[in-house]
Amino acid sequence: MTVAEVDAGAAVRRRPGRPRDEEMDGQIVAATLEIIDAGQDVTVSRVVAGSGVSRAALYRRWPSLTTLIAAALDVGRTIPPEYPDDVDLRDALIDGFGLGGSSVALAVSGYSEERFRQRIRLVMSDRALQKAYWQSHVSRRRVPLLNALRSGIERGELRADLDVEACFDAIAGTAYYQIVVRGDRMDDPAVAARLRSAVEVVWRGMVA
Amino acid sequence: MTVAEVDAGAAVRRRPGRPRDEEMDGQIVAATLEIIDAGQDVTVSRVVAGSGVSRAALYRRWPSLTTLIAAALDVGRTIPPEYPDDVDLRDALIDGFGLGGSSVALAVSGYSEERFRQRIRLVMSDRALQKAYWQSHVSRRRVPLLNALRSGIERGELRADLDVEACFDAIAGTAYYQIVVRGDRMDDPAVAARLRSAVEVVWRGMVA
Repeated sequence: MTVAEVDAGAAVRRRPGRPRDEEMDGQIVAATLEIIDAGQDVTVSRVVAGSGVSRAALYRRWPSLTTLIAAALDVGRTIPPEYPDDVDLRDALIDGFGLGGSSVALAVSGYSEERFRQRIRLVMSDRALQKAYWQSHVSRRRVPLLNALRSGIERGELRADLDVEACFDAIAGTAYYQIVVRGDRMDDPAVAARLRSAVEVVWRGMVA
Repeated sequence: MTVAEVDAGAAVRRRPGRPRDEEMDGQIVAATLEIIDAGQDVTVSRVVAGSGVSRAALYRRWPSLTTLIAAALDVGRTIPPEYPDDVDLRDALIDGFGLGGSSVALAVSGYSEERFRQRIRLVMSDRALQKAYWQSHVSRRRVPLLNALRSGIERGELRADLDVEACFDAIAGTAYYQIVVRGDRMDDPAVAARLRSAVEVVWRGMVA
């Protein structure tokens, strides 16, 4: 028996049932995402039916559906890497908001439109969840681009008095406005055109 | 009997019960707004309880709660007047988004934050209502400021290639982003500061 095998055995003994619980969590989260993607409200009954876990097990592992939905919405999302010092900032803005090839939808939300709409409905009904989701997820994904813009100010490329958070909000806000206010679809070419125009006008306002 | 009295009598005979129906609508809409402002979901039972009208009368006049809520959300909202030809466009942008004295909340949404959050939840769950609300209400309230910006292009004050719709979206989108994504309160001074910064950067990007 190797040291690794001994350690693994000890871990299993210290945390009985852990692998089974993780498997259950995967089933529960996957079922939750399926319900969200189908445009349905997430209910205990639907999660039980979709995941195959018992109602008791669901309640034990996820006492709050809100927390479950928030966790489900974050599946597969990552914080983008920092930009190199010599990055072209205008290109970084265009790429960062999905206008350089990848879809606007993915750049803005990281997931499908139905999931995005469900996320907005959820956070608009629960401000505590909204603030937690903002602080632990959304705001952290903004950091690399904000840092790149701050470097641009230090280099004298961007205006010294620039509020980089407000600039980011203006571009991201344009994207949200299309979906939340206009009710346009993320894959509508007019949405990409308007977002590109907004990036251009904000960029012109940012340069020194 | 005067002509007016005859006409009034004829009107009453042709449309029996009309004044009573209008009174009922006022009670129904007022009750709906109270429920929304209390942060509760609008249900038939709550509207019946709050308005004092019968369930049958409510169903007869408002077969769809969605339509009732949309009508309630539009109470008291108006389309702003056109701007004079010599308006200062930068001032118009600042005033138009509530940064010149009136509240950001009122400029962006026209109503309380709770009502605003309910509106977003509602439209995110019903795209047909969202498009209808956009076309018949929100987009019409944008027209005067968009016309003023187009006049600025004609005068050579703003860039000839400007997409005024995208510029409006960037500023309004910044305001929506504060509430919908950051989860900040409309009366938070940081919200007004960020919105003002966004107006400044977009304005600098707009001028010829």
